[in-house]
Amino acid sequence: MVEIIEYQPKRSELGYTFGGRTPVLRIHPGGILGVACEDCFGGRIRTGTDLPSAVCDPQRLNPISGPFHIVGAEPGDTLAVHLVAIEPARDWGVSATYPAFGALTGTHQTPNLQPLLAERVWIYPIDQDTNTVRYQDTNGLHHVHLPLEPMIGTIGVAPAAGEVRSTVVPDTHGGNLDIPQVRPGTTVYLPVNVDGALLALGDAHARQGDGELCGVAVEIAAHVTLLVDLVKGMTIPGPRLESDTHLMSVGCARPLEDAYRISQADLVTWTQDLTGLDPLDAYQLVSQAGTAHIGNVCDPNYTLVAAIGKTTLPGVIAFDGLHQRLRTTAAVLG
Amino acid sequence: MVEIIEYQPKRSELGYTFGGRTPVLRIHPGGILGVACEDCFGGRIRTGTDLPSAVCDPQRLNPISGPFHIVGAEPGDTLAVHLVAIEPARDWGVSATYPAFGALTGTHQTPNLQPLLAERVWIYPIDQDTNTVRYQDTNGLHHVHLPLEPMIGTIGVAPAAGEVRSTVVPDTHGGNLDIPQVRPGTTVYLPVNVDGALLALGDAHARQGDGELCGVAVEIAAHVTLLVDLVKGMTIPGPRLESDTHLMSVGCARPLEDAYRISQADLVTWTQDLTGLDPLDAYQLVSQAGTAHIGNVCDPNYTLVAAIGKTTLPGVIAFDGLHQRLRTTAAVLG
Amino acid sequence: MVEIIEYQPKRSELGYTFGGRTPVLRIHPGGILGVACEDCFGGRIRTGTDLPSAVCDPQRLNPISGPFHIVGAEPGDTLAVHLVAIEPARDWGVSATYPAFGALTGTHQTPNLQPLLAERVWIYPIDQDTNTVRYQDTNGLHHVHLPLEPMIGTIGVAPAAGEVRSTVVPDTHGGNLDIPQVRPGTTVYLPVNVDGALLALGDAHARQGDGELCGVAVEIAAHVTLLVDLVKGMTIPGPRLESDTHLMSVGCARPLEDAYRISQADLVTWTQDLTGLDPLDAYQLVSQAGTAHIGNVCDPNYTLVAAIGKTTLPGVIAFDGLHQRLRTTAAVLG
Amino acid sequence: MVEIIEYQPKRSELGYTFGGRTPVLRIHPGGILGVACEDCFGGRIRTGTDLPSAVCDPQRLNPISGPFHIVGAEPGDTLAVHLVAIEPARDWGVSATYPAFGALTGTHQTPNLQPLLAERVWIYPIDQDTNTVRYQDTNGLHHVHLPLEPMIGTIGVAPAAGEVRSTVVPDTHGGNLDIPQVRPGTTVYLPVNVDGALLALGDAHARQGDGELCGVAVEIAAHVTLLVDLVKGMTIPGPRLESDTHLMSVGCARPLEDAYRISQADLVTWTQDLTGLDPLDAYQLVSQAGTAHIGNVCDPNYTLVAAIGKTTLPGVIAFDGLHQRLRTTAAVLG
Repeated sequence: MVEIIEYQPKRSELGYTFGGRTPVLRIHPGGILGVACEDCFGGRIRTGTDLPSAVCDPQRLNPISGPFHIVGAEPGDTLAVHLVAIEPARDWGVSATYPAFGALTGTHQTPNLQPLLAERVWIYPIDQDTNTVRYQDTNGLHHVHLPLEPMIGTIGVAPAAGEVRSTVVPDTHGGNLDIPQVRPGTTVYLPVNVDGALLALGDAHARQGDGELCGVAVEIAAHVTLLVDLVKGMTIPGPRLESDTHLMSVGCARPLEDAYRISQADLVTWTQDLTGLDPLDAYQLVSQAGTAHIGNVCDPNYTLVAAIGKTTLPGVIAFDGLHQRLRTTAAVLG
Repeated sequence: MVEIIEYQPKRSELGYTFGGRTPVLRIHPGGILGVACEDCFGGRIRTGTDLPSAVCDPQRLNPISGPFHIVGAEPGDTLAVHLVAIEPARDWGVSATYPAFGALTGTHQTPNLQPLLAERVWIYPIDQDTNTVRYQDTNGLHHVHLPLEPMIGTIGVAPAAGEVRSTVVPDTHGGNLDIPQVRPGTTVYLPVNVDGALLALGDAHARQGDGELCGVAVEIAAHVTLLVDLVKGMTIPGPRLESDTHLMSVGCARPLEDAYRISQADLVTWTQDLTGLDPLDAYQLVSQAGTAHIGNVCDPNYTLVAAIGKTTLPGVIAFDGLHQRLRTTAAVLG
Repeated sequence: MVEIIEYQPKRSELGYTFGGRTPVLRIHPGGILGVACEDCFGGRIRTGTDLPSAVCDPQRLNPISGPFHIVGAEPGDTLAVHLVAIEPARDWGVSATYPAFGALTGTHQTPNLQPLLAERVWIYPIDQDTNTVRYQDTNGLHHVHLPLEPMIGTIGVAPAAGEVRSTVVPDTHGGNLDIPQVRPGTTVYLPVNVDGALLALGDAHARQGDGELCGVAVEIAAHVTLLVDLVKGMTIPGPRLESDTHLMSVGCARPLEDAYRISQADLVTWTQDLTGLDPLDAYQLVSQAGTAHIGNVCDPNYTLVAAIGKTTLPGVIAFDGLHQRLRTTAAVLG
Repeated sequence: MVEIIEYQPKRSELGYTFGGRTPVLRIHPGGILGVACEDCFGGRIRTGTDLPSAVCDPQRLNPISGPFHIVGAEPGDTLAVHLVAIEPARDWGVSATYPAFGALTGTHQTPNLQPLLAERVWIYPIDQDTNTVRYQDTNGLHHVHLPLEPMIGTIGVAPAAGEVRSTVVPDTHGGNLDIPQVRPGTTVYLPVNVDGALLALGDAHARQGDGELCGVAVEIAAHVTLLVDLVKGMTIPGPRLESDTHLMSVGCARPLEDAYRISQADLVTWTQDLTGLDPLDAYQLVSQAGTAHIGNVCDPNYTLVAAIGKTTLPGVIAFDGLHQRLRTTAAVLG
């Protein structure tokens, strides 16, 4: 019988950093966790007149639920988090232009002297029956239903080297990855940097475009169901993902080509480790068969995903088949 | 009855620049062109022992066929090139590690002091029956069939401002875009910078991974069939693409986030022009519904594609429906 | 009578993060601090055969002395640290090529597949009489004396938003700036993010070239004398510097143009605030009269300095004349 | 007796590309050239109400005088151009904010959706007696005299590989370098890519700040005196500079760190070639003794200069002492 834990944070328990916080729960490898996550604005934007700069504290964006102490996790291990379900907690999501944030505006990291873009809020009704969200422009000219494709924007562990990072930052510890592939059916692998790993997550999206262009997805509060497991004695340099069909490596960096290089170089190395190919042959195979997927081009680090299809690597089993075992467990839950 | 033209260049007629060359043919808008294209190595690499640095002149890579003078094209117009078919001319393709080229090595633009990667060639047999190419590693450990997905790596017109650019460079005139979406069924729109536009193309790929990681795709010679047309009096800032399902804008720049910004900003502007949305509403719609696709992360400029599905823009017709008319013509040909 | 404090950390008291640590001392504004700083390798490399990867823990590089609690410092204030003297603690300095670190090699942030550069150590004898350090190549072909120009590589405060950052990182809290202008005679201004500010410093350099090309300067342990003061109720967005002749703003970012933009934009804003010029006039003045100085192009963020000469801004007094008052105090000490 | 040539272009003879043009004159190595250069706006902006977007053709900015055919220059040689004098042709210079151009605004390469900065012109009276230019803000609040430090913004040769490049672009052929070190007393070395080299120049500046922040320096028309010479059979990968005190390598690229890498890597290689040091020892020496100077952070490629003092390389003679011989000749002229 697996351990089943539900966690609903009080508002005061929400976190704004990875690292530097006391665990809220202990979970054993193999355990199942149900966790309530607020949206990136802490639920404070509920109508088109709730402007982020008026209702949000800029140092308290992107709240996360956790951290969860994974029993037995030690530096040098890899944490596996299988996403079973992401259920919207409300019947709407929200997006916005946030001052000095987004890919098509000056920001604190890419400043300019031009007047800022106007701040505006869009509310997206969610229709669970049709699995869509509804876009409506400000002037009532145009509306369209877009697929509801729930994902987790922010998931990570305590960083290495005693660092504590804001939840708006993605890096090798995970964090604000904003990658659509972090969705139900995916296993997220994260390096364990401290005893207990200290997993935390939040910032669900009903959907997002590639790159999270304006800096804000269709943000939702959500109930997330996940399976937690541990790969003892195996280290990874940064986040990796696995779906039924693909192996994926994540790169977090600026400029964006460095995120590309990090993700692709890790995928080449991983391919090499799994297949025994020599380095140039692995480089060649990923060059022709690999894909690249843009997570965010707006956060303090940009994120890119390098992916290779499992059919390209016949017979290869990653992490000793853990993803498949987690899928099987998840199927029983469903 | 449409004009039908076949063009097979002599080796001496191959070009290595966009601009600066005399047209080889005149084509009327509405014309059909069948053109033979060499591979990026000029067909000089035929076995695993033909190393690029030994058999190729570094200033004569990426040969193109053309240029073709499009009758009536003037600066301020937009050229439309609909790709009907790309047929491999040989039963193999070739890839390689080329010295100081590729995303995971130092290059002339990103130099370092480390020893260079070894130069190596991979030959990919093409199986037209199964529509695959066959990857085989150097040590005989691993082989796999990958989908044959022919595309044109290099297509463009004479640049603006009297410039002449090497065929290895992608920019607002097109050129070495290395974008998988430039495939049969796609219409490529290019700005006309000089009288006659001076279209040229080459560098077909049997397939490539996203980013053309090692700098070289599965390179093939090919016979390309295309329809040429003209949008008079309409200017575009750089290449755009249209398929049956998507509108796409292309950005060419370094660093990669600038290619992202260029492509997404153009798609926002285009969306705004087509729908009448205000700028922030168009920004918002593309932010949630848009996708981004990586072309190359190895050429002198990187390329990114911003795309939006036509179902997201119901009732919208781009370029006065030209793509659909070209599709209809192409269907008759097929 | 001013407060005078000497601080000599035990090895166990050395810190490896900004933030997350208990103050070692309390200092009142106006106080004088004498502090012993280890070199970036913790003094572990003493001969050419002490390779960094063999003798150093990669998570314990760049030790700092402190943090010092500045009495009365609160978020919203600006901390002023005037550097009076930096005296080498030993009669030698050390440099090295460190694996996967430096501007002309692949790194964890800009990875490649090439073989790594060799690891090598250079010892630089310091001659206090001639104020030089002596470069000697490995094969005894060439030696030359270079000016001894002591500077502090790493100086900062606790970061904002509850973050804790490794001492190898420069950012808005200061940290591993690696800027030659952080030298005796300069006042360093830092934003106060937490009560007490929590100043710490280390990583002295006998000298460095612009950009710290190979990633390692001529690293020294040093005794540093500094004056500490406080500007109440005035916030700055990141580090600023003031010398007798120049006002300077520091930008920390990747890519390097973003560090340029941050530093220059802050200098434009600062110029505007000090002179009453309109924004475009301040932009124009800095455009023609400003200079830019490269700190590092190797750390997790690169650093650039924007500077403007005080003769360009006649009558302008920054921070209410604090730098001049600190200079006067320092002169008495000298 | 040396050859002395004066060249004053008619307006119709001004060029807007490097490459693609017929030589206006033939000059023998060892010849002296006096050449009149227009300012970057072609002299069209003469008062504060002449806005660039109104009076200039965006495809005809940055006019150059030339090209000059250097007799005997062949691909594989290096052209040496020693700058003897740069004399302002008028008693004023001009700067401006140009739409979508400059480092602190969105541009065509780094677009955003914010409103553009206002377009504005500043006229700088030149005082030859005090060797200054006079800055005056728009509202009459502030004026200051800045040193007159004439330099050539744009100097280059025909590019390699049959390319023709706009005069606004800097790259390995030179072009719009916008580097303050290109001033009287400096020898500029350029690779010869075509027979006759096809030297051209223009775009003089009365002065500029580092990075040419707003995109426009204090632009002047000028009479330039230069000595032309040739280093037969020696190739360089891009522009190099030599003054009485320094050897310098120029890097042109985006992002800015790549311009840094290119310039520093070339300086390391050059140092190695001149001294016989092994590569890592040369890397180390440049790391501690080298400096870096920012040219532009606004043009299609950014430019950085890596420099090393000649006192650091005792006994070293570059290009067989050509700079010193040209200095001697220039001294006779003066």
